[in-house]
Amino acid sequence: MRALLIGRFQPLHRGHLEVIRKIRADRPSAPVLIGVGSAEQSYTWENPFTAGERLEMIGRALAEAMVEGTLLVPIEDINRHALWVGYLEALLPTFDRVYTNNPLTRLLFEREGYLVESPPLFDRDRFEGARIREQLAEGSGWKDAVPPSVAAYLEEIGAPARLHVLKQAGSRFGRGLS
Amino acid sequence: MRALLIGRFQPLHRGHLEVIRKIRADRPSAPVLIGVGSAEQSYTWENPFTAGERLEMIGRALAEAMVEGTLLVPIEDINRHALWVGYLEALLPTFDRVYTNNPLTRLLFEREGYLVESPPLFDRDRFEGARIREQLAEGSGWKDAVPPSVAAYLEEIGAPARLHVLKQAGSRFGRGLS
Amino acid sequence: MRALLIGRFQPLHRGHLEVIRKIRADRPSAPVLIGVGSAEQSYTWENPFTAGERLEMIGRALAEAMVEGTLLVPIEDINRHALWVGYLEALLPTFDRVYTNNPLTRLLFEREGYLVESPPLFDRDRFEGARIREQLAEGSGWKDAVPPSVAAYLEEIGAPARLHVLKQAGSRFGRGLS
Amino acid sequence: MRALLIGRFQPLHRGHLEVIRKIRADRPSAPVLIGVGSAEQSYTWENPFTAGERLEMIGRALAEAMVEGTLLVPIEDINRHALWVGYLEALLPTFDRVYTNNPLTRLLFEREGYLVESPPLFDRDRFEGARIREQLAEGSGWKDAVPPSVAAYLEEIGAPARLHVLKQAGSRFGRGLS
Amino acid sequence: MRALLIGRFQPLHRGHLEVIRKIRADRPSAPVLIGVGSAEQSYTWENPFTAGERLEMIGRALAEAMVEGTLLVPIEDINRHALWVGYLEALLPTFDRVYTNNPLTRLLFEREGYLVESPPLFDRDRFEGARIREQLAEGSGWKDAVPPSVAAYLEEIGAPARLHVLKQAGSRFGRGLS
Amino acid sequence: MRALLIGRFQPLHRGHLEVIRKIRADRPSAPVLIGVGSAEQSYTWENPFTAGERLEMIGRALAEAMVEGTLLVPIEDINRHALWVGYLEALLPTFDRVYTNNPLTRLLFEREGYLVESPPLFDRDRFEGARIREQLAEGSGWKDAVPPSVAAYLEEIGAPARLHVLKQAGSRFGRGLS
Repeated sequence: MRALLIGRFQPLHRGHLEVIRKIRADRPSAPVLIGVGSAEQSYTWENPFTAGERLEMIGRALAEAMVEGTLLVPIEDINRHALWVGYLEALLPTFDRVYTNNPLTRLLFEREGYLVESPPLFDRDRFEGARIREQLAEGSGWKDAVPPSVAAYLEEIGAPARLHVLKQAGSRFGRGLS
Repeated sequence: MRALLIGRFQPLHRGHLEVIRKIRADRPSAPVLIGVGSAEQSYTWENPFTAGERLEMIGRALAEAMVEGTLLVPIEDINRHALWVGYLEALLPTFDRVYTNNPLTRLLFEREGYLVESPPLFDRDRFEGARIREQLAEGSGWKDAVPPSVAAYLEEIGAPARLHVLKQAGSRFGRGLS
Repeated sequence: MRALLIGRFQPLHRGHLEVIRKIRADRPSAPVLIGVGSAEQSYTWENPFTAGERLEMIGRALAEAMVEGTLLVPIEDINRHALWVGYLEALLPTFDRVYTNNPLTRLLFEREGYLVESPPLFDRDRFEGARIREQLAEGSGWKDAVPPSVAAYLEEIGAPARLHVLKQAGSRFGRGLS
Repeated sequence: MRALLIGRFQPLHRGHLEVIRKIRADRPSAPVLIGVGSAEQSYTWENPFTAGERLEMIGRALAEAMVEGTLLVPIEDINRHALWVGYLEALLPTFDRVYTNNPLTRLLFEREGYLVESPPLFDRDRFEGARIREQLAEGSGWKDAVPPSVAAYLEEIGAPARLHVLKQAGSRFGRGLS
Repeated sequence: MRALLIGRFQPLHRGHLEVIRKIRADRPSAPVLIGVGSAEQSYTWENPFTAGERLEMIGRALAEAMVEGTLLVPIEDINRHALWVGYLEALLPTFDRVYTNNPLTRLLFEREGYLVESPPLFDRDRFEGARIREQLAEGSGWKDAVPPSVAAYLEEIGAPARLHVLKQAGSRFGRGLS
Repeated sequence: MRALLIGRFQPLHRGHLEVIRKIRADRPSAPVLIGVGSAEQSYTWENPFTAGERLEMIGRALAEAMVEGTLLVPIEDINRHALWVGYLEALLPTFDRVYTNNPLTRLLFEREGYLVESPPLFDRDRFEGARIREQLAEGSGWKDAVPPSVAAYLEEIGAPARLHVLKQAGSRFGRGLS
């Protein structure tokens, strides 16, 4: 049956791609569901890219890496944690295994009887979303951390300038004059 | 570039499949985005199946029909129509053409500069969601209206019994004693 | 273990009281959870009384009838039916049996493994919420359909005048001039 | 002190303008608060125009008629009627008198101690929102029902074509294929 | 008339129980409304237990301590503070006195004319929610801070393991891979 | 055409008034739209005053300063930044120029083709919302930072006492006992 992997992909980086490859290799006959979390968020420091932009970059990276057999689904946050697994069960096609390194995600899925595995993290010092967002805001160092097609796409949508602004704007957005 | 087709797929029927095939044939080089509308709804007469069940049945039917090059995305309703196109632009990867027979959908997309086309409807007397839901509730006639893999899946999840109950329950659900 | 009974109690009537009595008699050792549904609604034709007013009238009627061992909980509607049972499990103390005459409520709870029973309805021609709301709007006939303490409370809060207005106002409320 | 008048202004018509003039004449020293209701709605048959379009047409009509001393505020619907007056008190500058012909609006404001008056309706057969929307959809008869500046604005934004589409689209919008 | 006491009860501890006892003793003829706040929250560090679990533990503790005459109501947060008292008035049966040590709760209720009293806090160094949650996460020291029936219930639902996980997971939940 | 200026005005201070004056002077023929942001917030440290109170104080200050040609509109926060400009376009009458010092506001509006200007800030050390809220909480120094009519209004509604309480209450509000 299908495996589920959830990430925010802000942005998709080489570490993400390695995890997806690994899961595909472990279970070649079953497609992988990739949930794109916090889908309703964008233009914030933690979530700079829209769900659409993230679907675009994941799709390009998977095509480039010739990884097949994935199904991408944007997932909005719900803030009622006790309902989260039920919410995913209603939103997604069936799955029987969950890959996560988050201990609470593990707890919530195990409570409902799912098998939970921890995917290996690849070169975590380099491939970590928060670090790459910092590098984008500073304008250097980020290109090696993402697949070439994602690097090109991030240039195309002006990601370095966007992150630079988001870092400055901080939490003051939407307030106008103060 | 990509085309976008939006439907609720309650359930997916042969008419839907023909439209998807036609769009794929017209634009073989571009993948088709299939938006699964009213994704937050389920267990109502108008929307009996969850988004996950609908992704499941669409996926099975496309595999059976060997249609490739589609990307399925659940879309929740927003009730601010003036924001609807902007909402889809943020949720979906880029697209430049929209297939719809709904005049308001056409109006809203044309207002934002999109090309809108009307897909041909196939044998509308037989292949229409509301009619198939009636047939499911009555227990006969629905199997020929959906692809074989969807017929099997609808049996598997007890769809006829569910529709029978939903027809009885009407709008009184959630009220308990009255 | 506990039984759960859900109603809107718009208003509480003699039929409701008989059902509660019956459930208490069947299972004397276990308290009964009474869910007060559509709790966020008020001042509409279908839901004229606030959750607070309904808790007040149920409390007075149970005291008057010397029914003990109940726990009242207001329940807001959620419009994602697939999550409804999970929502109640998170909101309520544990229960193992559900009393309902609504076929969809039955379906949703049975899907999750609950025992569901149909409570007998008492003199349904007289004791039915919609009928009593009509009688309140017309100003006569309603007093015999509710327990004495509820009749007194409904007078106290001006229920007949409120229902009279709600019947006139129909769905036009909130629109001001048109 | 200030008077409050609430309407949806879909669209603003001559009857609305007369009511505003009358209230200004009755209380020349106090400005009038004009609440533009259902502000979040647009592109529906009942609410075809956005809040912004309605503010625009009201502003133009008041300038044309040289009515001064008004303050326009968009008001979103909240569906908890028991909180509605409290919601308006938090949203609006202070007011002490309410003009409405809706009996529920009257009930809710009187419950909180406000003076409520019923404004006279002017030539209700001709000046009524639903009727003018029908005329817009049919393409004739509507121009005499609205002030000249509003007629020009409605032409400018293509209102007749929009209403024609909204009448066809009915409640099927957002569903795409069915 | 009734008194209202609001708490989050994450978890119910001996200090809470003493306050409830004290209010019952001061006003023996009137029942006490106990509002269980942030009812929609669970599985977070600040709000680890669902509303249902909190109703369960409060119910057990009151039965054990033979405290009668209480009415428990879950209360969801609303983030429009100006509407908060109106929201409670619509949700709860009538009350005329509020017990709170929070200065803003006092301000909001006094603005609406309620009598507000500050309940004495019992041995605040030991009986404080945040401290007990830390002890649960560490696995020791918490048992003496809660009534015996609550200690048993917290063991039963695996509270120490849950708090241990919530402490680790921090605010990263729901984000999956990063 | 119209200019748009967005602020939270918590409270309106002399710096705000100078900016409004400056924009009016630069473009005397066009009215200025003043958006009152975070309109749904009140009784928090960041947003102590309701939208209604802020409309009241802005209206008094503009009258006192004899500034005409403004249109005030309360604007609720939406947390989907990608939709923010579209949301304002639907809520407000048309505008073609935006005044802001926030780099993200600039980015979002420029992305949609608007002209964005940075208004000069006046004596920022003295005229800054957060500083004036601190002064209100401490009870001194704030009167010189706001126009006389606003100072009088803030006294009238007990602003110093409110800010004093909000500073104490911190983020613990709504939680009752802990």
